[in-house]
Order: sequence, then C-alpha cells, then structure tokens
Amino acid sequence: MATAVSPLAPERFPDLPPIAGVTFATAAAGIRYKGRTDVLLLKLAEGTAAAGVYTRSKCPSAPVDWCRKALPGGVARGLVVNSGNANAFTGKTGAEAVKLTADIAAKALGCKPSEIFLASTGVIGEPLDATKFGGVLDECAARAAEGPWIEPAKAIMTTDTYPKGATAKATIGGVEVTINGIAKGAGMIAPDMATMLSFIFTDAPIAAEALQAMLSRSVKTSFNAITVDSDTSTSDTLMLFATGAAEARGCPRVTEASDRRLAGFRKALDTVLLDLAHQVVKDGEGARHFIGVTVEGAVSATSAKRIAKSIADSPLVKTAVAGADANWGRVVMAVGKAGEPADRDRLAIWFGPHRVAVNGARDGDYDEATVSEYMKGQDIDIRVDIGLGNGKAKVWTCDLTKEYVEINGDYRS
Amino acid sequence: MATAVSPLAPERFPDLPPIAGVTFATAAAGIRYKGRTDVLLLKLAEGTAAAGVYTRSKCPSAPVDWCRKALPGGVARGLVVNSGNANAFTGKTGAEAVKLTADIAAKALGCKPSEIFLASTGVIGEPLDATKFGGVLDECAARAAEGPWIEPAKAIMTTDTYPKGATAKATIGGVEVTINGIAKGAGMIAPDMATMLSFIFTDAPIAAEALQAMLSRSVKTSFNAITVDSDTSTSDTLMLFATGAAEARGCPRVTEASDRRLAGFRKALDTVLLDLAHQVVKDGEGARHFIGVTVEGAVSATSAKRIAKSIADSPLVKTAVAGADANWGRVVMAVGKAGEPADRDRLAIWFGPHRVAVNGARDGDYDEATVSEYMKGQDIDIRVDIGLGNGKAKVWTCDLTKEYVEINGDYRS
Repeated sequence: MATAVSPLAPERFPDLPPIAGVTFATAAAGIRYKGRTDVLLLKLAEGTAAAGVYTRSKCPSAPVDWCRKALPGGVARGLVVNSGNANAFTGKTGAEAVKLTADIAAKALGCKPSEIFLASTGVIGEPLDATKFGGVLDECAARAAEGPWIEPAKAIMTTDTYPKGATAKATIGGVEVTINGIAKGAGMIAPDMATMLSFIFTDAPIAAEALQAMLSRSVKTSFNAITVDSDTSTSDTLMLFATGAAEARGCPRVTEASDRRLAGFRKALDTVLLDLAHQVVKDGEGARHFIGVTVEGAVSATSAKRIAKSIADSPLVKTAVAGADANWGRVVMAVGKAGEPADRDRLAIWFGPHRVAVNGARDGDYDEATVSEYMKGQDIDIRVDIGLGNGKAKVWTCDLTKEYVEINGDYRS
Repeated sequence: MATAVSPLAPERFPDLPPIAGVTFATAAAGIRYKGRTDVLLLKLAEGTAAAGVYTRSKCPSAPVDWCRKALPGGVARGLVVNSGNANAFTGKTGAEAVKLTADIAAKALGCKPSEIFLASTGVIGEPLDATKFGGVLDECAARAAEGPWIEPAKAIMTTDTYPKGATAKATIGGVEVTINGIAKGAGMIAPDMATMLSFIFTDAPIAAEALQAMLSRSVKTSFNAITVDSDTSTSDTLMLFATGAAEARGCPRVTEASDRRLAGFRKALDTVLLDLAHQVVKDGEGARHFIGVTVEGAVSATSAKRIAKSIADSPLVKTAVAGADANWGRVVMAVGKAGEPADRDRLAIWFGPHRVAVNGARDGDYDEATVSEYMKGQDIDIRVDIGLGNGKAKVWTCDLTKEYVEINGDYRS
C-alpha cells in the first residue's frame, strides 16, 4: 500500500479561521483504525441552515438515506462523520446504526435526531457498531472548540495522503463573512470505497433554500467536474451549513439565491469548492499528473461536458499522460466514443499551448520534441475544439499509473 | 512493451478448413512493421454477399467510411486489410488513400472498386501511403490460395500476442456449410489503437439482407458484449461474407433471416463470433484473468446489459480481480453507478458458486478463505441478481493489471 504523500499535494494545510456558531471535537472511537482519530462531532448554533448534494448511486449508504430524509427540514444542529466503516450495503442493521448514532448525538447536543446529519466512509458491507459512539460523542460535545480545523480534516480521512481544507471571505451588505471547507477524497485501500465527503461552513445568514440553490449550481463546475477513475461511491456527500452568526455583526439575512448581495458569496463558494475538488483529484490513487480537460465548440455545454468526461475517464488517455506521451490519437478516440455530435474533420487539439491537430489531421507545425517536453510537467492541459458550436466545459482528472493498480489490486489476504 | 503470449491464450490456432469461393494471400508491404506480413488480399467468388457492423465512434477512420458507403450494394469481390497504419484522423489524404487502395485491388481482382471492402489498423493520425500497395496486391492476387488460414490471422495483428481464428459447421437443407472467422484485438502499443477487426466467411448461399440481420443480432451477445477498457476504437470492423459456393453442392439459397432452415447456421455463427470475441478479451492488454459478468433479475435485458457493462468497465472491480480480491463491495458500487433501477436491499452477488451477499448485506455463510481460493483461478464468474424482474445479460472482460498501464503508458520517445 502506498502511503507516501501525493507529489501533487499542496505545501501545507491552509489557515482556516474560526466560524462563529461552529465548534467541534474529534476522537478515536476505534471503528477500524488504531492510533488515530476516526470520528468528528461538529456542533452548529441554533438556526443553522443546511443544504446538501449526495451520491447519484442507486445503492446509497445508510447515512446518505438518513441525510436525504433530514434535509427538507433545512435545519441542522450537528454533524457526525466517522471513518473506517462506510455503513454501506449493511441492510437493516445499517439503518439501525444510523438511527442510534443520531440519537446519541442529539442527546449530547440537546437537539432532535432529525437535526443531526451523518456521513460514514471506510469499509463497505461490514456492520457498523454505533454503540461505540456512546460515551465518545458526549465527551466530544463537552470539549468542542472553534479550532484547529486541521483536526476534523484529519479525522475524516481514510487513505487520503493529506488533509484537505480551503477558506475564502466575502462580503454581504458590506459585512465580511467566512466560508471554510474540508474534504476527503479518493484515497482507498481494498476493500474501502473512494468516498468523497466534503463539508462547508459559513457564518453568513442565508436561508436553506438559497443555500441549496447555490450549492447545487456550484457543484456542477467543481465536485461534479472531477473524476479519478469514473467509479461512483455509494456514500458521496457534500453539505453546506450556514450558522447565520454574522447577522449579529449587522450582516443582512438573505433568503433568495438570486439576491444581488450574494454575488461575492457565490464567487467565494465557487472558489472553496473548486479548491477542495482539485485537492481531491490531486490525491487520487497513484496520481502523478493533474490533468485539466477543456472542451469548447461543442453543440451545447452539456455536450461539451460529456465529451470532456469521456476524455478524462479514458484509461488510454490517462495512461498516455502517465507516460508523458502526447498521444492525441487517443483524445480523438475519446471524443468519438462520447456519442456526442462531433465532426472528425473540424477537430483541433492542444496539449498546453501546443496545437497538435487541426482540421481532422496532424498539425503541420507539430514538433514532437517540444510537445514531449511539455508532457513531462506535472500539470497537463488538454484542450479540444469541436468546431461545431459554442458549448464549453472543463473537467479535471489525474493520470492512471501502476500505483493505482497496486493500491487497488493488492491481495486482501 | 510486453511481447509474451497472453497466459489466457488458447493452446493452438484451430484447424480452419477451406471455404469454397475464398482465396487469399498476405504480403509484407512495409507499411510500418519490418520482417512481418502487414497486408491481406482476400478474393471472393462472384456473387458473394456481404454484411457488416462498424464502430459507433463519431470520429470513424477513412476505411470505415468507405465500407459504410459500399455495404448497401451487398456485393463483395475483395477484402484488403493492412496493419501498421489505421488511416484514421488523416483528413482528405485518408479518403484519397482509401480510394487508391480500392482502385488497385479492383484492378488486381477484375471487379469494381465499390466491390472492395477495406480495413486498416495501427498508428492513428499518420498519412497512409497507399502507393505501397501497388505491385503488392497484384502479386497477392496471382498467388491467392485456399489456405492456410493462420496467415491472414497473422497479417492483421498489431500487438496481439497470438493469431485468432474459429470455425464451425452447420447444415442448411441437409447440406453442410462451413463458417470460418479471424479476428484481431486489443493488443496495442502507443500510439496504436486497440482496433477490433473480425472477418467471417461462409460458403452458404445466403442473401445479403439475411446475412446482415443475423450478423447484427449475433454481435449483440458477442463482440458488443465484451470490453477491455471501455475505450472505443475509430476503426472497429466486423464483416460477414457468404460466397454461396455450397449451392453447387445442393445447398438451398436462403433469402430471409427468419427462414427455419437457418436455425443451425445461426447457432454456428453465434459460436464462431463468441469464440473470437472471447479470444479478443483474453488478449486484452495485460490480461491475467478472464471475467464473465452475468446480471439477472433486472427490469429488462437492456437494463441488465447496462449494469453488467458498468461492472465490467469498473477499474475498481477489474483491479480487485487482478489482486484476487473477492471485493463484492465494488460490485455493489458498480451496480449503483449504472443508473439503472436497482434496490440495494434485494441484491445478491456470487463469485463463481459462492454467494457472498444477499438481501443487501453480506451472506451469513460467507467464508473469506473459500472465496479467496476461488479468486486465485484464471476464469472468474461474477453473478448479480438485481431481484426486480426477468432481464438478463452476460458480458466478458479481463482484469486491469500493472501490465496494462505499462503497455499503454510507455514513453513514446
């Protein structure tokens, strides 16, 4: 199993300031790992609004079922996340474990179980013993504090090689608000799942419906625009919580996502989500290259995104980048298999600043040595102009290396 | 580059008998390779009917364009296949090379260019110099013979590790007819494409329309039910030619695919296609395990096939098999991501004869040691019962190994 920190990791965990209305503590509940924290209890001030986006899997985990049911209330008082066991494909016992966890957390925080949100990541198909949370969550509630934010980022890791956090400021009605986010990504060991979890917090006073609208929009160009290996977890969870504490400092309460005063907030939210999404890709199993795929000139933005995903998911494109091979033939192949409108003879393809193909054939000025030099870099940009319309999209992925196969193909026994 | 023969290869190339009305010769035209044959000229008797199925890529190669245009005639007198250059993404020069090749072959065989079918496999994006076929095809036409069939199977290889052939007999109206097939598959080196080519020949007197109907049906459960890495070539070509020579031996001419006298022929055709399709998977890059994925109990056969493809294309499932890991959690994940109707709590999963999960949770009788022993075998059967309906489908794939990454990620320069 590879345990070295990804070569694409940021230099350090960023400084995340406190968010008024958010306190937390982590603990070692012994769910699966030894000698590390594996549970996070996060307290949210009364009046906190919640928004969420969950996995599209038709076989979601028990905590995802729970969150989907609790979300329409739009009210959150607590969040419990554990690593080591995903509580996925665990049948009725899974649903019971979720209920017991929410009951324990609600008692510890003095709220209703339906105001508790839950996420689990780790081994699939193993019953989760929620009684282990008994004393632990009480104790966490007692010592919950405003920082440091690296602790929750660490507690939710499975085999991520580094903790992931991001922060941004915005003003609403002239008052500064903060957005903090943490995430865990696609590091995994058999038989764990590459569950993506991310939790975003703000002190801005924004109503749940507006939060949800902004989150659903922002996720399209961030977490829903990344792919490590095209596989979808049973447990993917992204949530955004707004404590509203900034209202006490004069920040106006906003209820509509279309409110112009949210322009800066929307931008800051986009920044935090994209930053975290990129960090997840950069910690993809065995990742050695960070790849941006831009498709323009498609018949629509949806079509552009499908083509970009087809390129980013192609094992042949990903292995070519791993081998620093400017293999634009495989990019043509991936455009062709996307099933979207494309005209071979109008295609143009760039690797970074170098146009390698144009009008459906190799660029006359193509110089293999120059392009090969570019492919040796860590950040690779692939751009395709379909030449049919104005549809544009960008997605991000990592390369497919022997280390990916090693990490995911190691004998369990 | 891995050059060892796949451990999944059949022991030997089968004995393919002559097919009346089919003669051929191979030659070394020096398209790209040195010291091996790289072009096949195949002569077909007057009156030969043709059927074909081509890549679904939106960026098909020039030869695929040519064949699609020639096919409605339903008449074939010759087939030219070259390896070393796919003549794909070559713009106008590609179309010109195709026309020149057909002209040269038609002259050599004394027929119309529109009666010549073409296929190319190899490097993409490089102009194909068709003038090289000039003397070569004339010379091939002069020495065309009825065998041995291993020669055309070899001439169309790119980095396949073994030549692929299959044969079967059937009777039509009490007269025995023969079906021979050859194929090349998914072995490749950068920057070649994993083009799948297969050509089937019979002496049965069957009309083109009936041939096409049978081929289109049979391909669904054979070549369209295999996947190596989910990537689709620009050049995939499957053709079926019927010389009708058996009519001279008293075989009745059949014009309708629904004719009951074709029952045995249909079965024999299915056998040959499935055999060749399996051989292609078993020569997938880096393949160490041959995996059958059966999905039953889906809401429809189409739904079952989508779920089966989702499992067979999942890098996490394929790396798990590479590691002999009975990781049914990843099978659940792949069912969930297929987007087809599925109820987590009704799922049951088997590895070979061993049921590992039932009613949405681990099987109570699951014994890891027993299942792990099964996973060490070369042939792995994964079966999933969705528990919702009667839809059933089966697909085949190979595992994802470090060798796959090595073969496809080697530096070009």
